[in-house]
Amino acid sequence: MRPKIYIFGDSITQESFADGGWGASLAHHFSRAVDVVLRGYSGYNTRWALKVLDKVFPVAGGGDAPLAITVFFGANDACLPDRCSAFQHVPLHEYRQNLHSIISIFKKRWPETQILLISPPPIDEDARLKFPYVENPMGMPERTNEAAGAYAEACVSVAAECGIPVVDLWTKMQRFPDWEKACLSDGLHLTQTGNKIVFEEVIMKLRDVGLSLESLPVDQPLIGDIDPSNPLKSFEN
Amino acid sequence: MRPKIYIFGDSITQESFADGGWGASLAHHFSRAVDVVLRGYSGYNTRWALKVLDKVFPVAGGGDAPLAITVFFGANDACLPDRCSAFQHVPLHEYRQNLHSIISIFKKRWPETQILLISPPPIDEDARLKFPYVENPMGMPERTNEAAGAYAEACVSVAAECGIPVVDLWTKMQRFPDWEKACLSDGLHLTQTGNKIVFEEVIMKLRDVGLSLESLPVDQPLIGDIDPSNPLKSFEN
Repeated sequence: MRPKIYIFGDSITQESFADGGWGASLAHHFSRAVDVVLRGYSGYNTRWALKVLDKVFPVAGGGDAPLAITVFFGANDACLPDRCSAFQHVPLHEYRQNLHSIISIFKKRWPETQILLISPPPIDEDARLKFPYVENPMGMPERTNEAAGAYAEACVSVAAECGIPVVDLWTKMQRFPDWEKACLSDGLHLTQTGNKIVFEEVIMKLRDVGLSLESLPVDQPLIGDIDPSNPLKSFEN
Repeated sequence: MRPKIYIFGDSITQESFADGGWGASLAHHFSRAVDVVLRGYSGYNTRWALKVLDKVFPVAGGGDAPLAITVFFGANDACLPDRCSAFQHVPLHEYRQNLHSIISIFKKRWPETQILLISPPPIDEDARLKFPYVENPMGMPERTNEAAGAYAEACVSVAAECGIPVVDLWTKMQRFPDWEKACLSDGLHLTQTGNKIVFEEVIMKLRDVGLSLESLPVDQPLIGDIDPSNPLKSFEN
């Protein structure tokens, strides 16, 4: 049976199978080699992620260890504590600690599984005012780019402390011309361009740890390898 | 753990996680309820599908039964036996028998699992000459719409014989204005419009047998159901 890559995160993961989404692109890329399994929970922060983790992943011994797990939280943790989405806020020190806990639960359960952290994306504050998710009587953005940057920096440093790879999406995305509109649809969620950046970064980081189409076995003979004069030979054994 | 829907078929299934693909749309639609598992094998016919079936699906007792399996073969079986893709051809009577075998293997293994047949799509013969997959010295299309129609009709009648639902894609798609170019990218594979038709038909047939977002449990509390004044209450138990 095929190995699995789980993608665990908030709405940016949950929505990643929409048109041009990075999760679907990952599943397409690995279409004959890996099952990409969606574990995205819109609105969730790392505190809530820890509450559901045991229910949404197999227990130890419950089948093969995943090849890899992407852990992509922080956009909700970084909601400001005194603005309209405060109930999703998680303090920075707890966010760091929660990421450590998530990583160590996975590492304990599946020591060989590659964990890949993804930092929250940058925030376009103007767009966050234009596309509110909840009532916003203060008229101030519930997320700021500066706060997202602090959580991204924490995410990157947790990865370094744990010796695991990380996509610093906050930094990468801001190098893209007109990133606010090109990469983000509502100041937080990803456009197709934003999704492409995530997909390409994830593929590259997986390749760096030895997980690529070249290194993974193909599930069943490829049509190009089947001998037209004796097709059934490919299916012997 | 979430229930699974397997999608089993040829290239039209394998490529269904590309941008706008019907498999990705299905995964997106069920993003909080079902794992959509890709089992697409480009170029395969029902004869080869039977050769790999035991290797690419769990054995009986190997975890929970899938909710549903889509079986979407016939486009390769219907290659003409005297044209350039003859090695993929499977005679019509054997195609019927192979579909019966696939269904009965699944039904024996998982009596409660819904099997949904999908017929091959119509063929645009002009486009098949413009976009050859192999050398075509005869200059005749390797697939014809008439042949695809005969396999589609067989698929529909097998479904009736087995008492299972079927998407008659060959018929449905030809009702679409300018279907040759609107629904097919190379006379066989699907455009985004073609993919949308498959997605909508599959969703409708699944709904008919009781599998819909309304009937399936949601994996973990939805953000809209979490009490902002006491979020952790949603995660008790």
